[in-house]
Amino acid sequence: MGNLYIGLLHFPMINRCGEIVATATTSVDVHDIARSACTYGVARYFVVTPLTTQQKIVWRIRGFWTEGEQVVEKSRRGEALELVFVAGDLKETTDWIREAEGVSPLLVATSARRQGKQCITCAKLKERLRNEKRPVYILFGTGWGMADELIDVCDVILPPIMVESDFNHLSVRAAVAIVLDRVVGER
Amino acid sequence: MGNLYIGLLHFPMINRCGEIVATATTSVDVHDIARSACTYGVARYFVVTPLTTQQKIVWRIRGFWTEGEQVVEKSRRGEALELVFVAGDLKETTDWIREAEGVSPLLVATSARRQGKQCITCAKLKERLRNEKRPVYILFGTGWGMADELIDVCDVILPPIMVESDFNHLSVRAAVAIVLDRVVGER
Repeated sequence: MGNLYIGLLHFPMINRCGEIVATATTSVDVHDIARSACTYGVARYFVVTPLTTQQKIVWRIRGFWTEGEQVVEKSRRGEALELVFVAGDLKETTDWIREAEGVSPLLVATSARRQGKQCITCAKLKERLRNEKRPVYILFGTGWGMADELIDVCDVILPPIMVESDFNHLSVRAAVAIVLDRVVGER
Repeated sequence: MGNLYIGLLHFPMINRCGEIVATATTSVDVHDIARSACTYGVARYFVVTPLTTQQKIVWRIRGFWTEGEQVVEKSRRGEALELVFVAGDLKETTDWIREAEGVSPLLVATSARRQGKQCITCAKLKERLRNEKRPVYILFGTGWGMADELIDVCDVILPPIMVESDFNHLSVRAAVAIVLDRVVGER
């Protein structure tokens, strides 16, 4: 059985005008995705942004729940936030996983748009995680989605969540929850 | 095939001390759940709160995206927000559905805790929606979950999303996304 990692990337992303930008981190992304990650047994949740001021904000959110007063509150929020780690770029996170696991993870892109890249279904990924030791690292984009150069470095891509729906604009928080449920959930 | 409705309830809810309270509405609940509802073909998404000031806030959020300037933006957010309707209590929403559909909906509770009530699985609910005309109305709680008196008036309850997980503290935004994916998604 392999470990599952997830990453929320903020650069290089597409904005609504098609330009490549660094998007802003948001508090609700940190919390919601950490809680989903904790529920589904994810090993680490990386929040990846090149902006050092934003990195500090995410560390501070984490610290608020994992240290100091909040530890004594009647809440298990801190357990989820302990899964959060902040990194400057994708390489920093894949290096960390390779060091911890002794092998590079299978790098999985996600996109709400159809892509030419080699697809892997959630069912296949689930089977793979069960039967192989190699870790799996699923990347999620922000803004209007990952730039092609980011998708290109991934090994495979998951198909859009709702192929048949005309409206495919889930929040990244919803998308992460659904993908985790499909890949690890009890169905 | 039956129509699917969802409701986000803010009263009567449990707080972290076990008291019954009205919780606060949040902007991200309105947006995220509307986007998930639109992706999965939900007929209406009711935001239910007895607090008239909070009702006004939710109508205002909806209006910002469905009327005026935002309509011309390069965004489809408004299509999702059009599904949002605000109500003062559960009865107001079930009355509305009965009037629109000519029949009362099957009222489905959700809870992260194990309940004694009659369970229905997501798979059964999916089959039911496909084969029967009676609408299904799934209720989601906020705060620390629905008070028993609310669960008691429902016909059935969905089991917790992750029975085997020791940590079962998903955000309601994640829970709605997962339940919709299980009940309507392409798997």
